[in-house]
Amino acid sequence: MKKALAFDIGGTKIYSTIIDETGEIVSEIEKFSTPKTLKSITDLLKEQISKYESKVDVIAIATAGAVNNSNSAVIGSTGNLVSGYNTINFKSLSTKKVFLENDANSAAWAEYKIGASKGSSVSVMLTLGTGVGGGIIINDKLLKGKSGAAGEMHFKMYPDKRRKCTCGSWDCFEIYASGTALKLDAEEMLNNKNVTTYDVIDGVKQGNEKMINILNKWQNDIIIGIKGLVNIFDPDCVVLSGSMAEFVDIKAMEKEVNSDIVTSPTAIKLAEAGNYSGMIGVSLLALL
Amino acid sequence: MKKALAFDIGGTKIYSTIIDETGEIVSEIEKFSTPKTLKSITDLLKEQISKYESKVDVIAIATAGAVNNSNSAVIGSTGNLVSGYNTINFKSLSTKKVFLENDANSAAWAEYKIGASKGSSVSVMLTLGTGVGGGIIINDKLLKGKSGAAGEMHFKMYPDKRRKCTCGSWDCFEIYASGTALKLDAEEMLNNKNVTTYDVIDGVKQGNEKMINILNKWQNDIIIGIKGLVNIFDPDCVVLSGSMAEFVDIKAMEKEVNSDIVTSPTAIKLAEAGNYSGMIGVSLLALL
Repeated sequence: MKKALAFDIGGTKIYSTIIDETGEIVSEIEKFSTPKTLKSITDLLKEQISKYESKVDVIAIATAGAVNNSNSAVIGSTGNLVSGYNTINFKSLSTKKVFLENDANSAAWAEYKIGASKGSSVSVMLTLGTGVGGGIIINDKLLKGKSGAAGEMHFKMYPDKRRKCTCGSWDCFEIYASGTALKLDAEEMLNNKNVTTYDVIDGVKQGNEKMINILNKWQNDIIIGIKGLVNIFDPDCVVLSGSMAEFVDIKAMEKEVNSDIVTSPTAIKLAEAGNYSGMIGVSLLALL
Repeated sequence: MKKALAFDIGGTKIYSTIIDETGEIVSEIEKFSTPKTLKSITDLLKEQISKYESKVDVIAIATAGAVNNSNSAVIGSTGNLVSGYNTINFKSLSTKKVFLENDANSAAWAEYKIGASKGSSVSVMLTLGTGVGGGIIINDKLLKGKSGAAGEMHFKMYPDKRRKCTCGSWDCFEIYASGTALKLDAEEMLNNKNVTTYDVIDGVKQGNEKMINILNKWQNDIIIGIKGLVNIFDPDCVVLSGSMAEFVDIKAMEKEVNSDIVTSPTAIKLAEAGNYSGMIGVSLLALL
């Protein structure tokens, strides 16, 4: 059976393991803090690759940042990673084929092949974490766009410049739907700069009404965004993944979305491919 | 050369002509007021079809409303057309193949085959008229979604219920980017219910500063929507068509969009396939 040496490169952690062509993880998951210099990142990758490349058919890298349409390089900037990250020559790191894909796109592909959107030829995946990632599948293919950068959930929630987004623009969906957004909602609604996302989640668990209102406001903004995406894509389903997804009321969300769209009823689902869906998805893509 | 008997069925007018496989209009354009009963619409179609079907290979109908994925029927409601329009059995109207597609999708296909987005494998077309239509092409295919209803430009411009959209929901792009929206902007900014879209256009031509501000506000809302679409699709280009498209400053729009997106530079273009792009596009699709 064919295998991939898989990596997931994020701003904080780098994960690595071996994954087979059915999407199964077949070796230990190794975990590293993301090095702070370009050289130490490439050294880490080289070391892992030299250790394992003889055992695999391909090197599959899920990474932060947009990946070009030939799946060979990161394009543009990747906020949380060291500057110059997009200049790394990934191909030169191995004698085997090296295949890159954006982490959210990779996770969406894992959901499509073995997870919540399995069998859905049109789906939208939203990863709700510190930020918001997006991966869109249309006619059983990843939506990449002309340069590979498609699927960015930076559509506007207001037209009149209220909240600065991490991308440098204003009022993107990301800055109303992320974990960061939940903290900003709490700051604004409680007029308290020190409140944390955890305070809100904890308060909700204890039945604190103010905190419940804050969570509902945040969830409603996510619903507003999903309605727009469902009207644009008419997808079979919308999949929510990421650490913040567990805090939404998925059934209430599905009911509200479907009561207010012009397209056809759409399932809203929690992701099922697990924490390593990025590595699984990119391996399945690389082994295609 | 293969030919289609083409129709464009809208809420006000029905057009009909013959179009060949290169997209050329090869007979006179006939124009009718849209009848107000179901029977009189089908009678009109039957009459035209019986007159011309022996001369063509296929009947190609661009229509208001979403069209299913087998291009045989209208699904859901079509605001401006007689109730029950979606129950018409179009296939039964001719012994030849009958092929339907949504009018905005058809026009987008015409732009892709012979117009402004020719050669662009990913594009978004917005039709700015009384309402707003959308047609999206991805990997050289129309985006249809699971039921055929994709491409609806009903994503939200505000999350908090300000302006009711014609679809029944709130604050959709359509109700900020259409001709109707320009009138609503003028009503709000001048506090005058009687001002018309024409008053604004006329005032702008005369250099009236208030009217220029209103037009700019409307154009800015369109820009806000386009930024979101460009971040989602990373398209080669965005094409603006429809009667209101001539009032936007397309160069200023392109500059502003490209200064504020996370994907890659995108051309903004005016449509080039002409007033009958719906009939041309659906004919080219039907003759594929």
